[in-house]
Amino acid sequence: MKVHILGCGSALPTTRHSLSAQVLELSGKLFLIDCGEAAQLQFRRTRLNFNRISDIFISHLHGDHCFGLPGLISTLSLLGRTAPLRIHAHPDLERLLRPQLGYFCRELGFEVVFQPFSPHSHELIYEDRGLRVYSLPLIHRVPSTGFLFKERPGSAHIVREMTDFYKIPLRELPAIKAGADYVTPEGEVIPHERLTRPAAPPRSYAYCSDTAYNEALIPMIAGVDLLYHEATFARSEEDWAATTQHSTAAQAGKIAAGAGAGRLLIGHFSARYEDENLLLREAQAVFPQTMLANEGMTVEI
Amino acid sequence: MKVHILGCGSALPTTRHSLSAQVLELSGKLFLIDCGEAAQLQFRRTRLNFNRISDIFISHLHGDHCFGLPGLISTLSLLGRTAPLRIHAHPDLERLLRPQLGYFCRELGFEVVFQPFSPHSHELIYEDRGLRVYSLPLIHRVPSTGFLFKERPGSAHIVREMTDFYKIPLRELPAIKAGADYVTPEGEVIPHERLTRPAAPPRSYAYCSDTAYNEALIPMIAGVDLLYHEATFARSEEDWAATTQHSTAAQAGKIAAGAGAGRLLIGHFSARYEDENLLLREAQAVFPQTMLANEGMTVEI
Repeated sequence: MKVHILGCGSALPTTRHSLSAQVLELSGKLFLIDCGEAAQLQFRRTRLNFNRISDIFISHLHGDHCFGLPGLISTLSLLGRTAPLRIHAHPDLERLLRPQLGYFCRELGFEVVFQPFSPHSHELIYEDRGLRVYSLPLIHRVPSTGFLFKERPGSAHIVREMTDFYKIPLRELPAIKAGADYVTPEGEVIPHERLTRPAAPPRSYAYCSDTAYNEALIPMIAGVDLLYHEATFARSEEDWAATTQHSTAAQAGKIAAGAGAGRLLIGHFSARYEDENLLLREAQAVFPQTMLANEGMTVEI
Repeated sequence: MKVHILGCGSALPTTRHSLSAQVLELSGKLFLIDCGEAAQLQFRRTRLNFNRISDIFISHLHGDHCFGLPGLISTLSLLGRTAPLRIHAHPDLERLLRPQLGYFCRELGFEVVFQPFSPHSHELIYEDRGLRVYSLPLIHRVPSTGFLFKERPGSAHIVREMTDFYKIPLRELPAIKAGADYVTPEGEVIPHERLTRPAAPPRSYAYCSDTAYNEALIPMIAGVDLLYHEATFARSEEDWAATTQHSTAAQAGKIAAGAGAGRLLIGHFSARYEDENLLLREAQAVFPQTMLANEGMTVEI
């Protein structure tokens, strides 16, 4: 599980930061999270494969989080994509994007499937064999939603030396992987735990941007391995953060600490900061395992 | 008169080229020509002032020439613009862009004025005290239009030494600048030419992208100082250029040579060329005063 940062600036772009977009990579699939303008150009720089993008998750309908969609979809079409592309977003997105696609992407070789979610509830919005994604209601000037990506628990690993020792037939292995004990022809019970190593603990990633300070998030993301939380402002702009419904770096740190997160990655930096180390220090004072996001960065979970 | 290249790639973006966009700078005003995705990010790199953009000219409604508009307009709004922004484009653009602006730019502090033009006629579409802009019908898969920017002829410059010598009253100077002779109190006629230096010859710039090879352009841009002409393909792809209604570098050279242009700037490079020097050589073989466009480049006219 890896996160690739494509853009971590806020609405006003700078020469140092691009607009919000990132990629979660898991088992060969790519999940795009937000798609600000130029996301496709930033994606190209990662050398990841456009055709591996399976789903796009859009947090909210502010331009700096979704204006990159028409360009990305056009490019996927030029690259010959045929697989459907699912976009999980606020229900309004389809009505805004369909006329654009109808006019500019008349020869689209694949289907764009809108999967709207309610921005107000915390629920399962995506599921495949390896992953579940839950929505996280955020607090912002327009309905805004975070995403919790949770790897599904894997099955135990068979210990080959033990199954050889007990001469266990191959046809018994799936049941043992799934949790069964083994009973020898002589009637001896070999417990599951002696035949297997436990699966690696499932990994998790939470994306929370844009949002005001919101303690209600804490139980929903408890124990998350990596939390990306917006940190638009420094402590000196705490009032302005509240007015614009953004968070300070220290508030991001408080959410991470409250949730017992493994690590915190902060981003969505206001253009006013020439040097985000101020934000880093303010978050680290509350939650030491904090990192600054940056374009081109990859974080392994 | 200067041209700043923001992007000179074709539809499929690469790590080397951004999407079509450039800025014509004249007498402190900035005219944006095409606005592909990320034009605002490229503009930011030029260190030009966003508030000096007075008009935007959109050649045609393919995404790689206009998907940057919503982001740019949002940014102008965040920067506090109040002056109206004129967009000269195919009539369909307004119907496509208005719903986006209505949703994403609810608090726009300035007016966006659409000035539609017919893509099929060659006519005056913009005029101010210093500049006239004419549309140039192009040949492409959708209606496409080039733009000829022609500086208006200036008035002559007064030669101070001569007006002092003849003790010419200040109130006579505007008439002399405009072309009048001066008659001394003694009745002597001092010809206009002795009192003035002629104005600098008016400069001109033509932008022709996207288009198939189109000889009808030649008389419309005869004598232009600088011609930007698309050169998507090399000679080996001439058939494919015709199919997709683009030009080869050699065809761009032929248009420049036919029009007696001062210089030719080629761009809109296909992503298939790792090194555009092939295109440069093919154009130069026909028209030696050819240059390759590149992001961040400024050409003085």
